[in-house]
Amino acid sequence: MHNELQQFITKKLPIINAKLNSLLAATNVSETLKSSMAYSINAGGKRIRPLLVLATLEDLGVESEDALTVACAAELLHTYSLIHDDLPCMDDDNFRRGKPTNHIVYGEGVAVLAGDALQTLAFGSLTHLSDTSAQDTIRIIRLLSDASGATGMVGGQMLDIEGETKSVSLSELETIHVNKTGALLSFCIGAGAILAGLDEEKSAKLKDFAYHIGLAFQIQDDILDITSTTEELGKTAGSDALSEKSTYPSLLGLEGAMARLAEHHQSARESLAFLEAEHPLLGLFADYIVERES
Amino acid sequence: MHNELQQFITKKLPIINAKLNSLLAATNVSETLKSSMAYSINAGGKRIRPLLVLATLEDLGVESEDALTVACAAELLHTYSLIHDDLPCMDDDNFRRGKPTNHIVYGEGVAVLAGDALQTLAFGSLTHLSDTSAQDTIRIIRLLSDASGATGMVGGQMLDIEGETKSVSLSELETIHVNKTGALLSFCIGAGAILAGLDEEKSAKLKDFAYHIGLAFQIQDDILDITSTTEELGKTAGSDALSEKSTYPSLLGLEGAMARLAEHHQSARESLAFLEAEHPLLGLFADYIVERES
Repeated sequence: MHNELQQFITKKLPIINAKLNSLLAATNVSETLKSSMAYSINAGGKRIRPLLVLATLEDLGVESEDALTVACAAELLHTYSLIHDDLPCMDDDNFRRGKPTNHIVYGEGVAVLAGDALQTLAFGSLTHLSDTSAQDTIRIIRLLSDASGATGMVGGQMLDIEGETKSVSLSELETIHVNKTGALLSFCIGAGAILAGLDEEKSAKLKDFAYHIGLAFQIQDDILDITSTTEELGKTAGSDALSEKSTYPSLLGLEGAMARLAEHHQSARESLAFLEAEHPLLGLFADYIVERES
Repeated sequence: MHNELQQFITKKLPIINAKLNSLLAATNVSETLKSSMAYSINAGGKRIRPLLVLATLEDLGVESEDALTVACAAELLHTYSLIHDDLPCMDDDNFRRGKPTNHIVYGEGVAVLAGDALQTLAFGSLTHLSDTSAQDTIRIIRLLSDASGATGMVGGQMLDIEGETKSVSLSELETIHVNKTGALLSFCIGAGAILAGLDEEKSAKLKDFAYHIGLAFQIQDDILDITSTTEELGKTAGSDALSEKSTYPSLLGLEGAMARLAEHHQSARESLAFLEAEHPLLGLFADYIVERES
C-alpha cells in the first residue's frame, strides 16, 4: 500500500471507530441487542466505505464536519448487510475476518434484529448532520436509500442468490455486482461529492470512478477466492468453485479476469484526471483494491 | 365500528393501497424480490398505521399532499417488521391473517431481504415529500428512525424475545410494548402533527394519546389471544398460554387486564379533549382498538 494512503488510514481509523461506537452508545433499550450490534461493528472491518467518504473530501480539498457521520452511516449500512448475508438462510457463513459471525455468537433471531437496527441507525444518524443544508441532507438520505434497497444492494444480493441456481452471463454478473457491492461504494463517493458541493460534471466523473472500483473490487474478490488460502482471506477460500457459482474467473478464465481487472483499474484512474493532486487518495485506493491480498 | 370511522376507512383504504403499490413499482432490480415485498404488502393488513396518520390530519383540519406518503412509509416499516417477526428464528409463524407468511411462500432468504428492502423503502419514500419543508422532512425521518430501531420497535422486539425465557414484571411488560408496538403508532400520530404544524403543547397531548392507544392495542391483543378462536383471529389463538409468555392477563388476570384496558381507553379519550370535533376520528380509533375482535 502506498505510504500516503497508509498514513491517511492510520490517522482516520481511530476517529471512524470512535464515532461508530458513539453512534451505538445511544441505542439503549436492550443490552443484548446493543452488544450484538457492537460485536459486528467492532469485528475488524477494513472501513473501506467510510475511508472512501473521507478520501473524497480530502481529494476535493473540502472540510466538512458532517463527513464523519456520513462515513459511519455507510459502515453501519454495510455491517447490517454482512450480518444478514452470513445467516444460515443466506450464505450460511460461520466465520468472517477470522471471527465467528454474529448469529454464531448471539443466535439467529438476535442477528436479524441487530442487522435491522443497524440499518435504522444508518438512516437515523444522517438526520443529525449539523453543517449541511437540509436539502443536501435529504439528497444524501435518498442516495443511501437508492443505493442500499431493492434498487441497489439488496436487489443485487437477491440476484446473487437467484444466480446460484442457474448459469449467468457476464452482463448479468456485472448487474449483480454493480448493485450488490458497487451501489454502496458509489454512495460513499457521491455523498462525499454532495458534502463538497461539487458540480455535476465533476460528480459524474467521480460516479464513473465509483463504478469502476466497484467492479474491480468484486473481480479481485473472485480472483482471491481461487488464488488465496482460507488463512490469508479470513474466510473460506475456494467456496465459489465448490458452489459452482458464476464468477469472473469462471466466465473469463483467470487471465481474462485479471485483464478485466486491469481495465477497470485503468478507467478508474482516468476518471480522476480532473483532480489536481499528484497522488489523489482515491487513486491510491483504486491501486489498493486491485493489489490487496484479502 | 362507528359509522363515521367506517366511512373514513372505506374512503381511504383504496388510496393507501394504490400508493403502497406505486411505491413498490419503482423497485425493479429483481422481480422475485419485488413480488415478495408486494405479497406481504397486499396480505390483508388493516392499515391501522397509515389510517392513524390520515386521521390525525383530518382531526386537526389540515390537508397535506404528503400525508399519504408518510402514512405509507409507516406501513412499509410495519410490514418489514412482520416479515422478520414471522421468521423461524423469531416467532416462527406459518400463517398471518389466514395466509401463509412470507418465508413459507418465498423461502427464508428472500423473506429476510424483502423485509430489509421494505425498511429501506420506508426511509427512501420520506425523501420524496413535495409539500413539506426540508427541515420538517428531516424531523419526520428522525422520528421514524427513533421509533423503529434499537431505541424503539426493534429494541422492544428484542426485549420481547428475552422475556420469553424469564418471567417479567408488569413494568417490564409495559416497556416491551411501548417500544415494540407503541413507538410506531406514536410515530404515525407525531408525524401527522409535524405535517399539520401543530404547536408543542397540543403535540404533547397527541403523544399521550398515542401512548395510551399503544398499550390498549397490546392489552386487547393479549385478551383476544385467550378469548378468541384461531379462525376469528386469522392467527394461532392461545399461543401465549402455550409458550408461558408473560401477558397482561397472565400478570393481572383477565378481569384485571380488562380494567387496565378500560383505563388506557379513558385516558386516550381524555387527551383528545383539545380537539373541537364532537367525534374526532382518533377517538373512534381508540374505541375500535378496544372493541375489535381480531
